[in-house]
Amino acid sequence: MTQTITQVAFIGLGNMGGPMAANLVKAGLKVTVFDLMPQAVAELVKLGANSAASANEAAANADVVITMLPAGKHVRGLYLGNAQADQQGLLDVVASHCLLIDSSTIDAASAQLVGQAAKAKGLEFIDAPVSGGTAGAAAGSLTFICGGSDKAYAMAQEVLGIMGGNIFHAGDVGAGQIAKICNNMLLSVLMVGTSESLQMGIDNGLDPKVLSDIMKVSSGGNWTLEKYNPCPNVMDNVPSSKAYQGGFMVDLMVKDLGLSQEAALASNSSTPMGALARSLYVNHARQGHGKLDFSSIFEQFANKNK
Amino acid sequence: MTQTITQVAFIGLGNMGGPMAANLVKAGLKVTVFDLMPQAVAELVKLGANSAASANEAAANADVVITMLPAGKHVRGLYLGNAQADQQGLLDVVASHCLLIDSSTIDAASAQLVGQAAKAKGLEFIDAPVSGGTAGAAAGSLTFICGGSDKAYAMAQEVLGIMGGNIFHAGDVGAGQIAKICNNMLLSVLMVGTSESLQMGIDNGLDPKVLSDIMKVSSGGNWTLEKYNPCPNVMDNVPSSKAYQGGFMVDLMVKDLGLSQEAALASNSSTPMGALARSLYVNHARQGHGKLDFSSIFEQFANKNK
Amino acid sequence: MTQTITQVAFIGLGNMGGPMAANLVKAGLKVTVFDLMPQAVAELVKLGANSAASANEAAANADVVITMLPAGKHVRGLYLGNAQADQQGLLDVVASHCLLIDSSTIDAASAQLVGQAAKAKGLEFIDAPVSGGTAGAAAGSLTFICGGSDKAYAMAQEVLGIMGGNIFHAGDVGAGQIAKICNNMLLSVLMVGTSESLQMGIDNGLDPKVLSDIMKVSSGGNWTLEKYNPCPNVMDNVPSSKAYQGGFMVDLMVKDLGLSQEAALASNSSTPMGALARSLYVNHARQGHGKLDFSSIFEQFANKNK
Amino acid sequence: MTQTITQVAFIGLGNMGGPMAANLVKAGLKVTVFDLMPQAVAELVKLGANSAASANEAAANADVVITMLPAGKHVRGLYLGNAQADQQGLLDVVASHCLLIDSSTIDAASAQLVGQAAKAKGLEFIDAPVSGGTAGAAAGSLTFICGGSDKAYAMAQEVLGIMGGNIFHAGDVGAGQIAKICNNMLLSVLMVGTSESLQMGIDNGLDPKVLSDIMKVSSGGNWTLEKYNPCPNVMDNVPSSKAYQGGFMVDLMVKDLGLSQEAALASNSSTPMGALARSLYVNHARQGHGKLDFSSIFEQFANKNK
Repeated sequence: MTQTITQVAFIGLGNMGGPMAANLVKAGLKVTVFDLMPQAVAELVKLGANSAASANEAAANADVVITMLPAGKHVRGLYLGNAQADQQGLLDVVASHCLLIDSSTIDAASAQLVGQAAKAKGLEFIDAPVSGGTAGAAAGSLTFICGGSDKAYAMAQEVLGIMGGNIFHAGDVGAGQIAKICNNMLLSVLMVGTSESLQMGIDNGLDPKVLSDIMKVSSGGNWTLEKYNPCPNVMDNVPSSKAYQGGFMVDLMVKDLGLSQEAALASNSSTPMGALARSLYVNHARQGHGKLDFSSIFEQFANKNK
Repeated sequence: MTQTITQVAFIGLGNMGGPMAANLVKAGLKVTVFDLMPQAVAELVKLGANSAASANEAAANADVVITMLPAGKHVRGLYLGNAQADQQGLLDVVASHCLLIDSSTIDAASAQLVGQAAKAKGLEFIDAPVSGGTAGAAAGSLTFICGGSDKAYAMAQEVLGIMGGNIFHAGDVGAGQIAKICNNMLLSVLMVGTSESLQMGIDNGLDPKVLSDIMKVSSGGNWTLEKYNPCPNVMDNVPSSKAYQGGFMVDLMVKDLGLSQEAALASNSSTPMGALARSLYVNHARQGHGKLDFSSIFEQFANKNK
Repeated sequence: MTQTITQVAFIGLGNMGGPMAANLVKAGLKVTVFDLMPQAVAELVKLGANSAASANEAAANADVVITMLPAGKHVRGLYLGNAQADQQGLLDVVASHCLLIDSSTIDAASAQLVGQAAKAKGLEFIDAPVSGGTAGAAAGSLTFICGGSDKAYAMAQEVLGIMGGNIFHAGDVGAGQIAKICNNMLLSVLMVGTSESLQMGIDNGLDPKVLSDIMKVSSGGNWTLEKYNPCPNVMDNVPSSKAYQGGFMVDLMVKDLGLSQEAALASNSSTPMGALARSLYVNHARQGHGKLDFSSIFEQFANKNK
Repeated sequence: MTQTITQVAFIGLGNMGGPMAANLVKAGLKVTVFDLMPQAVAELVKLGANSAASANEAAANADVVITMLPAGKHVRGLYLGNAQADQQGLLDVVASHCLLIDSSTIDAASAQLVGQAAKAKGLEFIDAPVSGGTAGAAAGSLTFICGGSDKAYAMAQEVLGIMGGNIFHAGDVGAGQIAKICNNMLLSVLMVGTSESLQMGIDNGLDPKVLSDIMKVSSGGNWTLEKYNPCPNVMDNVPSSKAYQGGFMVDLMVKDLGLSQEAALASNSSTPMGALARSLYVNHARQGHGKLDFSSIFEQFANKNK
């Protein structure tokens, strides 16, 4: 990709979007931002970003537009506008060479709908959901899982490289979302499976630290044992050792598991473990633990009677 | 441990026990073997082992006895004998300094029963189930997960080190069995969860190789993606790429999941994922796939209608 | 309801809609029918129905419109039309006193969308999904589970009474769909739970007929034991005793379980049993059994190795 | 059966055994009782029973022995004695014509072991676990599910008919236990499935009473909707409408589900729903709800955040 990006529009400055945009500003790019919360905009302006009166105004002269929004309906509304209400979308206002990157975690169907509409207008669109949490957003070490054409994926390297470390190309538009929810569904299964295995070990007199050390280098080895042990006081500096504060909230895992089940319904797939993990996480959230870190599912297995 | 082992008795020369005993012979130890199958004994004798007319005779002068048997009832019978039938057990015939190592994968309760009886006679007993399969047994690269006293664990290092690579100390007698079935239960959850995630990706148009590469280095990372991908033709030289031949049989996973559920019942533990994995594996075995490698659970999710 | 219905429009003459419409004709009502399949229309005309060139033409002079379509998108398209394509919907063409009854089994969200649009135009709409299968449709003994206003529910009695026996009022528009999928989700759980319980009894030497007789009148009693035993040769004249032919197809149960999981996602509900039943039914369908009766899930638990 | 029972020994006078024995006394039989708790014995003596210094003494002259004990190990110990400790069992002391009835809910393997030992001594033994709870025990309306020979079953009618209403013959010795746990496993599935279905209805705006009425007479109909609705205030006089007090405790359901899983392991059966129900009930008990009625599993699905 020879053309260098100079103008970036960043729309959606929440817990993730804010620090992501900040890293672009710090890297020397010209960044114009928009968010419905003036406070969030002000913080970016303080760092050197420009503000705009609307998302469409922010995007008007951009070489790249990056969006970071809560759900599929917001993404569809922002990109497609509303013909009945005579409201233009981003696709109606951006320059013809502008690359569109949506980093929201949303349903694949919405990503595909926007991607098709972009293609119909000759625009390149890429879905690039992230993992790595707010810490990764701040550190510029996010993982991006991208769906889009080879051309769009190549064009996106420059800006994504500023905000993240690993950048993957999962396939065509929508594939980024699918790959991310496959991964996060599997993560939830690892977390629940590891939790119940550790608790069964504890119930039978084993030291969870010893058991974790054994399983970590055996065939039970997985990311949660490596980086994110759910049993309190096995690892330092993980949420389970800090009363399950910080990290990735149960409510967000419930959201991602909902997306995974939507995808499973759409493709008529059978995901017994993922579906069971969703039920357990929903029960956990409904019992009032939605704001705890998702490794707190361990507490569903612990014996409160002891 | 200063005392060097010279005489080993090895009882149970099946698919695992045979090559394990062979490695001890090759290492220069004096090994006396026993098995109910004369053929199995003959093969070890050919390599230089001595044979005995019974397990008790084999064990009579041993510094270490190693046993590798199918199930708890065999282990109990061999070590404890049968008072009503006036039949002596290993515990009645071994020398007072003899170390007893049972490498069978059995229920923890049986291991604990034998361990207590050994202790009552002043003998050291260790349960040391293995993982690594027949390939690991042949290569001398098994993993041993041990339960027993610190003293017994130290004494066992020499012989276990000849047969295996990783040697873990999980806790007191029985802890080896518990740790192993916790690990294998978790492994089954990883295998099922990875299978359904990959198939959902495929159903949504993703390349399973690309998806595996992404998840392997993301938070879905686990042993099965690293070493044992269940989707055909993603990795070379794994059972899934060889029509699920070889490897670790479904029937053996069903056995281990049965042991894990026995332990869960005994300790009143809740293991929803492990219990579900067991049901899926039993269904798979009952449909006639018990002799396939356990990664063939992937086929439960594939779409045969296409 | 004093006003007597004289003109009925019936749209969608498939396996269910055809015999339902036929019963209305036989009851002496003036019925105008429409279906995309001319053959289906011809059969009704033979019985005395009128045909129309389009759904909208059929509905133009009707006192009641009844629709029986495969999925939510068909219902939305038919009632709402397509503004962009300048295509009118039923709501645009029916008389102001016309009662609209949709008997399709669809997602509640679609039913609510159509219901709101109808209300905005001053029309009464009722969602009235059925149970009872093709046999019930032919016999005029269907169960209708209705969602809509008290007024609409009262208006619907006359025609529904011709096609069915039990008529329930579940609540406002959409409640009929929700109640139906709650029921069918529960039915799938009863079927799977009964199947595994009977097979466990058989595996332990019990006669499934004796066990069924005991559980039927005990606390395990449920509709499947009463009317639809899944174990072959326990009851006469049920699909399980006829090689699982006839009855309610696995593919249709998969569809209904998909709708139930859509509803669970929309309301953030936890349905571990329903989700598990869906996974098991999808596996069953993917193994090539989609056209069998849904009681064939029993075969997932039987031991093919024996 | 011509021989009339005159002497009954009743051993185990707990919450169930006490009122059962009382009904035999009230019916005019000569009943000799034994229990480790003198208080329990005293209550029966007050009603007219004789007491004995030991179980064996109570049984010595009995025509029928009835036992009601907590677990398999108690039953095995009582009937078989302990040869090593030179302790006689019931089988060693009863008259040759004496009928042995164990009404405990225990594992089938223990029942079969005792049954075989009885047969070897020419004695008739029957396992006859009950359902109906303490209320049924007091009212003499228990259900007995019997395993044993036709002769033993016929002999048992007289005494069982005094204590209960429905008496079933499930098969040979052990079949009573198997049938009971099949039934109770299925009951747990009905209860969980009904709970999640009702809550999903509520989450979508339905009145649980209306939904219950619809499902009760539809294909979701089952014993819990008929007699024991888990949603508060749908039915009067059930535990759910009395803060889940009384009824059948969660801890007892956990015990029965443990027995069902033991049987599933022994017969290598797959019971995905029963295993999941067990996990959910264990979680519920571990969260401190073991003493509530088992219909309180409904609370696992309710939304505490509202």
